[in-house]
Amino acid sequence: METKLQELKNRLIEINDLESAAALLHWDQSTYMPPGGAEARARQLATLGRIAHEKFVDPAIGKLLDELRPYEESLPYESDEASLIRVTRREYERAVNVPPSFVARFYEHTARTYEVWARARPANDFPAVRPYLEKTLDLSRELAEFFPGYEHIADPLIDYSDYGMKASFIRELFAELRQRLVPLVQAITAQPPADDSCLRQHFPEAQQLAFGREVIARFGYDFNRGREDKTHHPFTTKFSIDDVRITTRVKEHLFGDALFSTMHEAGHAMYEQNIRKEFEGTPLGGGTSSGVHESQSRLWENIVGRSWGFWSFFYPRLQEVFPQQLGAVEMDTFYRAINKVERSLIRTDADEVTYNLHVMLRFDFESQMLEGNLAIGDLPEAWHERFRTDIGIVPPDDRDGVLQDVHWYAGRIGGSFQGYTLGNIMNAQFYAAALRDHPQIPEEIARGEFGTLFGWLKEHIWQHGSKFTTSELVERITGGPISIEPYMDYLRRKYGKLYALPVNDAHPADSGHR
Amino acid sequence: METKLQELKNRLIEINDLESAAALLHWDQSTYMPPGGAEARARQLATLGRIAHEKFVDPAIGKLLDELRPYEESLPYESDEASLIRVTRREYERAVNVPPSFVARFYEHTARTYEVWARARPANDFPAVRPYLEKTLDLSRELAEFFPGYEHIADPLIDYSDYGMKASFIRELFAELRQRLVPLVQAITAQPPADDSCLRQHFPEAQQLAFGREVIARFGYDFNRGREDKTHHPFTTKFSIDDVRITTRVKEHLFGDALFSTMHEAGHAMYEQNIRKEFEGTPLGGGTSSGVHESQSRLWENIVGRSWGFWSFFYPRLQEVFPQQLGAVEMDTFYRAINKVERSLIRTDADEVTYNLHVMLRFDFESQMLEGNLAIGDLPEAWHERFRTDIGIVPPDDRDGVLQDVHWYAGRIGGSFQGYTLGNIMNAQFYAAALRDHPQIPEEIARGEFGTLFGWLKEHIWQHGSKFTTSELVERITGGPISIEPYMDYLRRKYGKLYALPVNDAHPADSGHR
Repeated sequence: METKLQELKNRLIEINDLESAAALLHWDQSTYMPPGGAEARARQLATLGRIAHEKFVDPAIGKLLDELRPYEESLPYESDEASLIRVTRREYERAVNVPPSFVARFYEHTARTYEVWARARPANDFPAVRPYLEKTLDLSRELAEFFPGYEHIADPLIDYSDYGMKASFIRELFAELRQRLVPLVQAITAQPPADDSCLRQHFPEAQQLAFGREVIARFGYDFNRGREDKTHHPFTTKFSIDDVRITTRVKEHLFGDALFSTMHEAGHAMYEQNIRKEFEGTPLGGGTSSGVHESQSRLWENIVGRSWGFWSFFYPRLQEVFPQQLGAVEMDTFYRAINKVERSLIRTDADEVTYNLHVMLRFDFESQMLEGNLAIGDLPEAWHERFRTDIGIVPPDDRDGVLQDVHWYAGRIGGSFQGYTLGNIMNAQFYAAALRDHPQIPEEIARGEFGTLFGWLKEHIWQHGSKFTTSELVERITGGPISIEPYMDYLRRKYGKLYALPVNDAHPADSGHR
Repeated sequence: METKLQELKNRLIEINDLESAAALLHWDQSTYMPPGGAEARARQLATLGRIAHEKFVDPAIGKLLDELRPYEESLPYESDEASLIRVTRREYERAVNVPPSFVARFYEHTARTYEVWARARPANDFPAVRPYLEKTLDLSRELAEFFPGYEHIADPLIDYSDYGMKASFIRELFAELRQRLVPLVQAITAQPPADDSCLRQHFPEAQQLAFGREVIARFGYDFNRGREDKTHHPFTTKFSIDDVRITTRVKEHLFGDALFSTMHEAGHAMYEQNIRKEFEGTPLGGGTSSGVHESQSRLWENIVGRSWGFWSFFYPRLQEVFPQQLGAVEMDTFYRAINKVERSLIRTDADEVTYNLHVMLRFDFESQMLEGNLAIGDLPEAWHERFRTDIGIVPPDDRDGVLQDVHWYAGRIGGSFQGYTLGNIMNAQFYAAALRDHPQIPEEIARGEFGTLFGWLKEHIWQHGSKFTTSELVERITGGPISIEPYMDYLRRKYGKLYALPVNDAHPADSGHR
């Protein structure tokens, strides 16, 4: 059995080598590739993807998985071996369920749709993408039908990014969250807006980058096993557990965009850098879901990076780096500026409080479209209406409305968005659990020390890679299911204080430093 | 037949995609990869190499080649189709002749030998590498034996880099060259040495890089289809005809090293950038041999880049870039400095005149070792003796003697060096042919214009990729075989004048500008 398991591993690592090579081709495409390289690069990526796929759906892998079933069943569920077989089988079955001819059709369509969208968005031309999006919806439904027996048609699609989460559960969770967020946003935006003019000065790129790198090196991002480059859109990519790279972009006239994106990507990257080496190159060797991944990125970006404690240590450093710009700006002013809450149009620019309202409307629309309860043609109007009720403003056009996110125009409709808000919800749960184990974490953060938090996350989340599903991980850590309470508690305390709202107890992360 | 040819092409392009991905992994390893990435990278490269090899030796390719033979024979030799089938068959037969088990043994041994060498060289410890090198020699002989019927045992090994060149021919050519170079070196080094102190000042990296890039952009290197990065050892690499990158290194206390290496790599890169797009991804889509490649790199580096005409245009520009360092240095002084001839130990640092003496001794030793006429144990002593007679100095140790080049310690013994000197010989033949067609080229160079030379090289050499062998290309261009006359003529004129030796006619490239 160990020979068979080794043979399975060897095959998986070979496939992972091809995928890692493809990831490097992507990274290069976004960072250093000269314009002329684009045409051949697209072909090379398609070739690597095709060969990796062919090797994964090889019936020999199915046979090995069958032969290994008794072995798996003889082992504890949590053992590395049983987990490897279980998670590989799950991915194998998903891969073989979808006929190659469908995959080809699907990719061809989404590639074409992306091109149409890239022209339609700046032109504010939703009618141009509408027929493509209708076809995307058809194909997304067709994809879901390869997995009969689902409870909701979105479930098989959600499984691609957040395995095991059900639309029914997410819908209920999100409805509850929305019900409590909308009044919070209304209460906050009834107050005078924070003054963020201190962020809108000239902050030279080199110093912004150097400061961000200093911060994430202190977090524990390992630059010996990673690096940061500049790209149009920030992302994290991985070529092995010991080579996890991030990218950022810098706006010289807006401090914060680069720094918080760097912290965010470092959160993703520390997760990937700290998976157990034994899982390298196998389906266990990556983060378990988009939701858990997002919980890590947003924990470092928001719970840590936008906290009073963090800045009580770093703000004097930042003032040293930018004495002309910030030397005369009080820390309280700066803190309010980086935590400014406002009704805004663009998800990716949204603050911590309103962000989830942006995400949840997309999730709801995805479900309704898949169910057949919302036609593509009615989407722009539905978007405007929901914006009005949830966020309190109406987009002036589709460009900054239904055309703003690439997701639907470069992939499927279904399963694309829920991870962002699940991540926000879970990060508060995880952080609360860490504080229960180590109440001194906020004090350490205020001294610029992150080792205890880093160690806790590594022990309870990172090292496990994909061994546990999202729900299993939450259950192991909190003893219960995903719950919005810690998150709402965090938001109410932090923003209640910032905006002098009724609920006013100091949040642990912010205690004693203001 | 066209369907079969298309099927062959599709298979070849798929293999090339894998090889191009591997090339990018190599490039990244040398440029931006963090230290932690090394372990997984080695495995990923091995995986890509193995899959590409497996796909190339697939009997289906042999079958297609067999089926296409009548079609090939019905077409003119020079047609694209016949050439593709012919060159693919040549490479296929070479690949299938060598058993996979031997390839694995060979790579394993050379990887280990490289590691031993990397420690032994700084320690000046030839005895440490001796047993490994003996095994490398055994394996190299074994490799040659997979190609029975050779005239000289080195011939099959030479075929890997300079297809069709025979050891007997090269030996005779080199003997003649050596006979004429040794007295030239003696005559030159009997003169007072050139003063190159003007190059040994502080030249900041950024300006050196910018100047080099300006020069090669004027040559015609296309930065929209390439880029330059820094590495420990300069090289050229290619991911497609439209993405050919070069690297360089900068010594801030020695002007010239970076610039001439940049011109050299640009010569390689312009060759690869200007192969016909129809050959992309096939065995026709790369330069035809190491010798022809080296002829292009050294043409731009030496015949153009170290000429009086080139500098009569660029020296004033260079003085503007480095006014403090060069503002008071006469062009004649600078020109003598960059063309200084001296007896030296290290091949890669050698000047234009002595360089080939370094190469030829290596070629001769390779032949003798393969023949069984020179034992590994006797190599250091033979090296010292040959250095004394050819170059006139004796290495103080093995570190800067037999241990200096990586070639034998990371590959085979045989076929590794001849291309450097074949390139020098051919570059003079090609340049002379270009001048016969376009006598105005030297005047254009002196105006900083390179279009005519670029166009001639593209038409006669670059566009053809690997369609013609080295000898075919020389025959097509010069109407005869490889000959040392144009090269000796070039050296005697240039250096005869520089060092006031008997032969003194102005070389066309240098005419009228001093």
